[in-house]
Amino acid sequence: MRYVSHKQLHDFSCRIFIKAGMLAEEAAIASTTLISADLRGIDSHGIARLPGYMRLFKQGRMNPRPQIKTIHESPSTLTLDADNAPGLLAGPYAMDLAIKKAETCGTGWVAVQNSNHFGIAGFHAMRALHHQMIGIAMTNASPLVAPTFSTSRLLGTNPIAFAVPAFNEPPFVADFATTTAANGKLEILQRKNENAPLGWIQDKSGNTSENPNELAVGGALLPLGSDREHGSHKGYCLGATVDILSAILSGANYGPWVPPFVAFLNPPDNPVGKGIGHFFGALRVDAFRPADDFLKHMDHWIQTFRQAERVNPNQPIIIPGDPERLTEFTRIQEGIPLHPTVDNSLIALGKELDISF
Amino acid sequence: MRYVSHKQLHDFSCRIFIKAGMLAEEAAIASTTLISADLRGIDSHGIARLPGYMRLFKQGRMNPRPQIKTIHESPSTLTLDADNAPGLLAGPYAMDLAIKKAETCGTGWVAVQNSNHFGIAGFHAMRALHHQMIGIAMTNASPLVAPTFSTSRLLGTNPIAFAVPAFNEPPFVADFATTTAANGKLEILQRKNENAPLGWIQDKSGNTSENPNELAVGGALLPLGSDREHGSHKGYCLGATVDILSAILSGANYGPWVPPFVAFLNPPDNPVGKGIGHFFGALRVDAFRPADDFLKHMDHWIQTFRQAERVNPNQPIIIPGDPERLTEFTRIQEGIPLHPTVDNSLIALGKELDISF
Repeated sequence: MRYVSHKQLHDFSCRIFIKAGMLAEEAAIASTTLISADLRGIDSHGIARLPGYMRLFKQGRMNPRPQIKTIHESPSTLTLDADNAPGLLAGPYAMDLAIKKAETCGTGWVAVQNSNHFGIAGFHAMRALHHQMIGIAMTNASPLVAPTFSTSRLLGTNPIAFAVPAFNEPPFVADFATTTAANGKLEILQRKNENAPLGWIQDKSGNTSENPNELAVGGALLPLGSDREHGSHKGYCLGATVDILSAILSGANYGPWVPPFVAFLNPPDNPVGKGIGHFFGALRVDAFRPADDFLKHMDHWIQTFRQAERVNPNQPIIIPGDPERLTEFTRIQEGIPLHPTVDNSLIALGKELDISF
Repeated sequence: MRYVSHKQLHDFSCRIFIKAGMLAEEAAIASTTLISADLRGIDSHGIARLPGYMRLFKQGRMNPRPQIKTIHESPSTLTLDADNAPGLLAGPYAMDLAIKKAETCGTGWVAVQNSNHFGIAGFHAMRALHHQMIGIAMTNASPLVAPTFSTSRLLGTNPIAFAVPAFNEPPFVADFATTTAANGKLEILQRKNENAPLGWIQDKSGNTSENPNELAVGGALLPLGSDREHGSHKGYCLGATVDILSAILSGANYGPWVPPFVAFLNPPDNPVGKGIGHFFGALRVDAFRPADDFLKHMDHWIQTFRQAERVNPNQPIIIPGDPERLTEFTRIQEGIPLHPTVDNSLIALGKELDISF
């Protein structure tokens, strides 16, 4: 396992994106989004995806020179047509507009159509933190999840993120797929040839399964809650709400029509909208109460939860965002560990495009 | 089991609330909120709670003549001090202000402090539907839920509701506690003397338990997801977000300080805010795209999900809100079934206050 500094990864990613036709400034923004996943330890959404993004550019399925346009507007809302941009670029663009709206209006809400995979939701939500705002980000994704009682794959893992600023404490950052397990966790099990816990996956007939390869033969991921008795209908509600806000509000594809983000699968040929959809929100805390009051009570909330009684003395209570922040702290210093498969794919990509890695 | 018409229940509830000191008009609003739970089949939140509400009025812990006040405002936001009103009244009041904000601003967001139990979240969210808006409602609640890895009860069942209008199809209405099981479901098991499924509850040491009475001896409800391996940290994130939006934004009590809604338990004597907190949102769909486009795609979404492949041919796929709407349809015609215990408690309440039931 090789460790590479995040700056080096960022630089490599930039040069690759520029080679794909992106403007230098936009390549830098997209690379910052991408590498934030590696820094925060969500390796499935980071530099490992670079070769995949390049395949989408090559196939003409992602636009390196997008003209992102506002297509609808109200005082607190905006709808964007991302012109088939990488979501890595459209995400920060849209979130910054939500923040701008919130500055004047108290809150700002931006729906995005015609976009692509946007990396980790948490990164976008966190842009609000520096403005003393609560940030919200979500996206739909290609269908891998079956609603409760169904064998049809109609929803993506549809992640949602909430970032909340505090005063002295680090921020609260929740960022999670609305399924029991994210797809990245299955990929890890596939690589290790290990079984999945029951409750993550069903087979093509809707029976619970431990086979992490079940999705290749008609199986599906399960909504958060796993089964009806344990609340899978709630996970289904949540994933559905993300789909509706991200795509039906914006005019993107929804449900089974969300295009895949892997180049070897073709998008459905009867689209119901444009690209994939995202939804962003920013809430200025001082639009609700004086900022200092909010931030200090948030500190108190965090401290209370952190100091709660533990089931196991060695396992601290986690404040959402803690593990990712600690990983980022370490990886800024020690570099980002690259799995040999990923490392080799990046070296190959660099060779192909004549960019050293 | 006696069946009573919803109009008769509404009338009884009104007269009881008036006897408690409420204005007739406000008693009618609160009763509509209350009976909506009975109509929609969420019996734990309906007329069965009336004696409990009366005990809170009697103890001076809920204010029958509140002066609800705006204490903070921005173009798209409001914060209300509900003056210790019944949440049954403060909820519709706040939601209607969110709708008004959305009319001018595209979206409207209202945080409420100093309130009490507000009935079912779905009722409030659904007020937005008649305005071609998406409605959002959530509330915190007294602490019964332990965060992942903890034995401390720090969160309530903190429900959240999303209501989305459609064109010809009935609306999408998701309304769920952010725990594996709502507290009402435990109460049913307690009454029947039946065990709970594993994954709903933990005992005071944090071990999973089937005992539905575990909460009486230091146990806790589990966040949606049940355990770490099945994503309980996501349910914890969601419940925590509801707590933060409802209480830290508004200035209400949060976490372990949320006052209980049963009169036999005293509120904590070191409050960190005022009463319990709610959070409401309204999003005008035509602030994002032409309303007809939205509504027709929503129809298509609903039809697609309804027609998905079934695991069991006899179990249809449920669109969120279907079961409650069908129950309402039946109960409007056949009346609301009253469990003998509830029936007797209402008769006793009526006698006590000289109001026939």
